[in-house]
Amino acid sequence: MKTDGIRAALIDGKAIAARMRTETAAEAAELAALGWQPRLVSITVGDGAASEVYVRNQQRTAENAGVEFEARTYPETISMEQLVGVLQGLNADPRVNGIIIQRPLPAHIPVKTLQKAVHPLKDVEGMHPASIGNIVYNDLALGPCTAVAAVEILKTLPLKIEGLDVTVIGHSEIVGKPIAFLLMSLGATVTVCHHMTRSVAMHSRAADAVFVAVGKPGLVTGDMLKPGAALIDIGINRVDGKTVGDADFDSCAKVAGWLTPVPGGVGPVTVATLMKNAVLATRMQMAHYRAEYALTDV
Amino acid sequence: MKTDGIRAALIDGKAIAARMRTETAAEAAELAALGWQPRLVSITVGDGAASEVYVRNQQRTAENAGVEFEARTYPETISMEQLVGVLQGLNADPRVNGIIIQRPLPAHIPVKTLQKAVHPLKDVEGMHPASIGNIVYNDLALGPCTAVAAVEILKTLPLKIEGLDVTVIGHSEIVGKPIAFLLMSLGATVTVCHHMTRSVAMHSRAADAVFVAVGKPGLVTGDMLKPGAALIDIGINRVDGKTVGDADFDSCAKVAGWLTPVPGGVGPVTVATLMKNAVLATRMQMAHYRAEYALTDV
Repeated sequence: MKTDGIRAALIDGKAIAARMRTETAAEAAELAALGWQPRLVSITVGDGAASEVYVRNQQRTAENAGVEFEARTYPETISMEQLVGVLQGLNADPRVNGIIIQRPLPAHIPVKTLQKAVHPLKDVEGMHPASIGNIVYNDLALGPCTAVAAVEILKTLPLKIEGLDVTVIGHSEIVGKPIAFLLMSLGATVTVCHHMTRSVAMHSRAADAVFVAVGKPGLVTGDMLKPGAALIDIGINRVDGKTVGDADFDSCAKVAGWLTPVPGGVGPVTVATLMKNAVLATRMQMAHYRAEYALTDV
Repeated sequence: MKTDGIRAALIDGKAIAARMRTETAAEAAELAALGWQPRLVSITVGDGAASEVYVRNQQRTAENAGVEFEARTYPETISMEQLVGVLQGLNADPRVNGIIIQRPLPAHIPVKTLQKAVHPLKDVEGMHPASIGNIVYNDLALGPCTAVAAVEILKTLPLKIEGLDVTVIGHSEIVGKPIAFLLMSLGATVTVCHHMTRSVAMHSRAADAVFVAVGKPGLVTGDMLKPGAALIDIGINRVDGKTVGDADFDSCAKVAGWLTPVPGGVGPVTVATLMKNAVLATRMQMAHYRAEYALTDV
């Protein structure tokens, strides 16, 4: 899609996701043949209307990626303790390889407490503090899906990440910061900006690639970019019934070299990453159980 | 110490450390009165000559900070499995509140494996992946001592950290990256440079504060600094029998506004932070045991 005034190449998130699903399906089949069919359990609490489309989308992607998917819904009235008990049961069950906690959760259930209750080996969303800590240690086991997806997209571009100057706008724990640490591990020079930054434009204009994950439509405009830079837009906002990112698409498309559309950019790659994590988690659990209950000729 | 050509104010790490020890001693006395005298166990493996001065220094600081300190040495021939067993014993012992693993270790004992074997609640060095992950979550329990110390030093300066432009040179897992996270949590705009960065000077000259933790004497020179910037030098190098940092002291002192000397800057604050962590760990363990074995009138 090159139209008048647009210089940026649009990044096709759906195509990247499709390639990832094909790879994941092959790995899942291999694991299934060894008796370890990867299987996810999704947990929704209360009225699932807000996350229904999202869960259905995950379910469909899982099927395409050779991953079994069970969607469970618990009543809004369930106590925190009961829910943690459910998670402990899933943690102990070797036929469950990954646990997804759908948001939003009711007010009496703090999301962090639930995320910490998921065993790190089954943390396919990559939300456990130990999972995040492993990123810092360059020891990427299960990374947070959105952050991993955004970085995977950058890797598809003809840019050498070593030495690349990258500005990340947004410093959330599950997106901005993990992106920064993934990029550092790959050798990029990373600057992280946020709402307290004096001049975001000063940093973004100096960058070869810009990641934005804030949740403010129109936050990044073309004049904030270096001509030819890559812009990975992680924002998802509803404006006048339309889904848009954090970038002002029209002005950015005139300056950027590459640009992710919203929708169709980071989103599909994120769900594909979740399935990749499911397969990785299954492989780690297989190794763990084999080491624990090794069938040797004693 | 202001001499001709020097504009930087020298930061007195020893004075900062002394203040921290006084606070820690008061907290340790409070815990001791409740039956929870903070106590550290230091583990050296093999010939301790390389770490002997360091351990003795820790021991003396512990005594000044009201923290008990037991230095253990195991023979070089101890197996990895036995050592992990020792750690598990210390993890289970409520009279041990913190475990320090002295480096270097013999080649057959990977340091990361040992660090992961220390229970996160007793990880006073802040090296466990879960400890690092908690920093990302702004949920600072036990942070890595050197990184925490470096940031504590910045906090003593009359600079507003919110919105401050900071460049961190060095992206190690236990110093550079945690400093970056800690500063982000405090609202700074952080750039992390390293050996693959195309132009470190470009980033350092734009910064209000520079942290350097690389281990290369003379790496940062005055022309790489913005006049009046703060320079926190975390390097420890031996040059011609003298201990020096990563900054070229003479040229930096003419440009910087504040500067940590080496030795006498970050070093003493790091050991004081270890003791602060010991007290914090003891407090967390007391809360943990109380919740577990609550003496209620059932």
